[in-house]
Amino acid sequence: MKLFGYWRSSAAYRVRIALALKGIAYQAVPVSLPAHEQASPGYTALNPQALVPLLIDDAGNRISQSLAIIEYLDETHPAVSLLPADPAGRARVRAFALAIACDTHPLNNLRVLEYLQGPLAVGDEARLAWIRHWLAQGLSALEATLAGMPQPQAFAFGATPSLAECCLIPQLYNARRFGADLAPYPRLRAIEEAALALPAFDAARPERQTDAPPDVRTTP
Amino acid sequence: MKLFGYWRSSAAYRVRIALALKGIAYQAVPVSLPAHEQASPGYTALNPQALVPLLIDDAGNRISQSLAIIEYLDETHPAVSLLPADPAGRARVRAFALAIACDTHPLNNLRVLEYLQGPLAVGDEARLAWIRHWLAQGLSALEATLAGMPQPQAFAFGATPSLAECCLIPQLYNARRFGADLAPYPRLRAIEEAALALPAFDAARPERQTDAPPDVRTTP
Repeated sequence: MKLFGYWRSSAAYRVRIALALKGIAYQAVPVSLPAHEQASPGYTALNPQALVPLLIDDAGNRISQSLAIIEYLDETHPAVSLLPADPAGRARVRAFALAIACDTHPLNNLRVLEYLQGPLAVGDEARLAWIRHWLAQGLSALEATLAGMPQPQAFAFGATPSLAECCLIPQLYNARRFGADLAPYPRLRAIEEAALALPAFDAARPERQTDAPPDVRTTP
Repeated sequence: MKLFGYWRSSAAYRVRIALALKGIAYQAVPVSLPAHEQASPGYTALNPQALVPLLIDDAGNRISQSLAIIEYLDETHPAVSLLPADPAGRARVRAFALAIACDTHPLNNLRVLEYLQGPLAVGDEARLAWIRHWLAQGLSALEATLAGMPQPQAFAFGATPSLAECCLIPQLYNARRFGADLAPYPRLRAIEEAALALPAFDAARPERQTDAPPDVRTTP
């Protein structure tokens, strides 16, 4: 199994967590986003969307979109499940993940920030305000969603991590990277702390990846 | 079953299509986005994300996020299925839907356009260029994805509509609204024509909804 990704891509990070939680061995294929390797003809022939991640499994199936990949892994490697068994529970976990994947992350990814800086000529300060605005919108809704739930457990929706943490932990990494104030989100930070204490989440960290620059790279 | 939505919301439109395809009766509860009713305390108590759609089913389950709602409906009302049976097929349909829901639609929804116009003081022309840029990025990737598939059938992934069309038809409605050039996407337009010929897609159209303004509202 091959995973095309980039060490700091939030969407690739989600899939790395899922693979690690399920104990699936894979070959990491780095695609440098700052060098725009994702827009090369070789890569767009594999993924016309010109985005990472992309999974190619041993049967040759090419699957794009982090959430589609994780659902696929959950259906084909069900021993460690990332979704609850009941439809309403599954819906709640998916809605939490989609609130990140649809309404928070896409507004702050590299191609959007490049468009703000380029065609719209938005200055650095206004660009940082944009980033933090959408982070605050997204994270405060997630915190409020969890605050409305009874009896907090270690993770967002139970005693074990789910698709929710596959999305939340990379989003919080991203928020820290842009200097967002995380003080208003104690529940999210508690979940992050519990997750990062697990070897699977640790192995998936950006700074553990082989394509991380030497000055940030760490080994366990 | 109640669906909180807005006639012109692309995300609510997706769920209306799924409900109509499955023949599920529901009560439409209009939430006016231009009047910011989605940010009222009454509504955010139901959905902290302050977005439509929101489904409340007869058991009282509150489910947000259009794709989570459609997956929930697919699991609880499986007679008309919106996903293929095999995991790789399901992954391809989900990836197509997510390419719209994560990477195309969120960049052009109302709250983003308001932020461009307000804090960033982006003029009308540059704002329209932004909208059309992300539409072209998204739609051309979808067209390329389908062009790479053998033997086109009536719909994106087979002889019957799926989650792919639940997302594609509203996205094309949105593209027309902003005057995007759809000439480069013949396959997408053929799918749209096939879909809109079906009563379920017709019933879900924005202009068929009770909260559409009288001057655009039409009846079948």
